[in-house]
Amino acid sequence: MSKEPTSNLESAMQMLIKTFHKYSGKEGDKYTLSRGELKELLVEELGSYLGNSKDNEAVEKVMNDLDANNDGEVDFTEFIILMGALTVACNDFFLEFKTEDKPKDDSAAKTD
Amino acid sequence: MSKEPTSNLESAMQMLIKTFHKYSGKEGDKYTLSRGELKELLVEELGSYLGNSKDNEAVEKVMNDLDANNDGEVDFTEFIILMGALTVACNDFFLEFKTEDKPKDDSAAKTD
Repeated sequence: MSKEPTSNLESAMQMLIKTFHKYSGKEGDKYTLSRGELKELLVEELGSYLGNSKDNEAVEKVMNDLDANNDGEVDFTEFIILMGALTVACNDFFLEFKTEDKPKDDSAAKTD
Repeated sequence: MSKEPTSNLESAMQMLIKTFHKYSGKEGDKYTLSRGELKELLVEELGSYLGNSKDNEAVEKVMNDLDANNDGEVDFTEFIILMGALTVACNDFFLEFKTEDKPKDDSAAKTD
């Protein structure tokens, strides 16, 4: 079952699964993240994206967004939605950075 | 800007972004996957998940699902939705495998 990943995408999938369970297994339901576990995961694994844990507001915001159903737990699907949104945001930032370097032929960048 | 990832989650995000652009940049719009680029990505990067490219049906199914808007292109957000769904499916499979080993105290597994 635990074969080695053979591509970057497979590695990425395995890392997401392993990281979630590394934290979800610490207390309570082994297959969901409590608020404490989520905070630990965010600070330790995404600290540099979310402001190195100094920006407590960012951590609180993520928690509140994910805890919309108020059960105080984040399941794997909710975690993947967060990671997807973060990855899309990173990609958008990266593209904006790239496209600023070259001349535009449309007016998408207009501000009003 | 291109700092090294400091955690598994950051590595996973970078791998997803890099892999998408490795294929999206090959032809046409540099920031979307054409059907040909998507097929290449699926076969080369997820071959072992999708049946080592022998199961052409799997590739076609993914393409048709993602090409719901019929523009013939898959953008980064659509790609991330696919990867998220695949990762959740992998995780479910992994959990089912694990929970079969231990006694259950609820009736969630009943079939009728």
